[in-house]
Amino acid sequence: MAIQNMQEAFVHELKDIYYAEKQIVKALPKMAKKAQNQELRAAFQEHLEQSKEHIQRIEQVFEALGKTPRGEKCEGINGIIEEGEKLLEEQVDESVRDAMLIGAAQRVEHYEIAVYGTLCTWAEMMDLDGLDLLKEILAEEKETDKKLTKLAKEVINVEATVEAEE
Amino acid sequence: MAIQNMQEAFVHELKDIYYAEKQIVKALPKMAKKAQNQELRAAFQEHLEQSKEHIQRIEQVFEALGKTPRGEKCEGINGIIEEGEKLLEEQVDESVRDAMLIGAAQRVEHYEIAVYGTLCTWAEMMDLDGLDLLKEILAEEKETDKKLTKLAKEVINVEATVEAEE
Repeated sequence: MAIQNMQEAFVHELKDIYYAEKQIVKALPKMAKKAQNQELRAAFQEHLEQSKEHIQRIEQVFEALGKTPRGEKCEGINGIIEEGEKLLEEQVDESVRDAMLIGAAQRVEHYEIAVYGTLCTWAEMMDLDGLDLLKEILAEEKETDKKLTKLAKEVINVEATVEAEE
Repeated sequence: MAIQNMQEAFVHELKDIYYAEKQIVKALPKMAKKAQNQELRAAFQEHLEQSKEHIQRIEQVFEALGKTPRGEKCEGINGIIEEGEKLLEEQVDESVRDAMLIGAAQRVEHYEIAVYGTLCTWAEMMDLDGLDLLKEILAEEKETDKKLTKLAKEVINVEATVEAEE
């Protein structure tokens, strides 16, 4: 049997997010390159550095459990990133690309918020050592999501909107 | 060119979530069937009914824009659902299955929260008629996510945890 108890379930989720963070680190430079707005580009670059730190912190959580850090392929993040990359390949007018990039990035953020949320709830219930590290990461992901919403309001090209209404 | 202005981008996102809600309506009965905890099963069934209502409200938003409701395949939700279904097929001990089901369901919720969040931000910026309907749905998705976190704390089998610690 693959997963027999809550601690094994926890390690399964940890492997999932470890894999996801590594995929995100690969995807973010492509997103930053496509962003036109300077602030948005900087936000993607900042989140790239943050994601690299998250990987190190997840490794610490693995170690606290006496486990070797290992990722496990997850279809969820792969699908979300695939959707975002398809968008980058599609012919999207420059006036709306940044807004759509933010939409794609917020899907990634919310995937992370869901998994870190699950890990925090479980770690709390099981009184695990990694809880503080996981709480810190979760807070940072929520912060990034808020920042992206704020940026969305700034990058939306009102003229492109007006044109559509005519 | 596929997407030329913000209104077209908005319709693109609306098609994405219309497709996603329909996939969720197909997936939820399987999740409810697998749930052992009565409250969790009821929560999945309740969310199924709610998702059907969301589909109707999205149709109203399409109509308000003078568009025919249509879905567009999105890899994001497909990946998340595939991951959840793979989990249901895996040999997971009964003592942890409900907790893992909730983890899978919260990934779905957060995908929806991300997309409805984007739609609300854009609708607000563009002063679109569907904003109130979208805000209602977003609030309900956030409520479901909170309810699932609460249920996670109830369904976690403490004995299964203790066993793992020994």
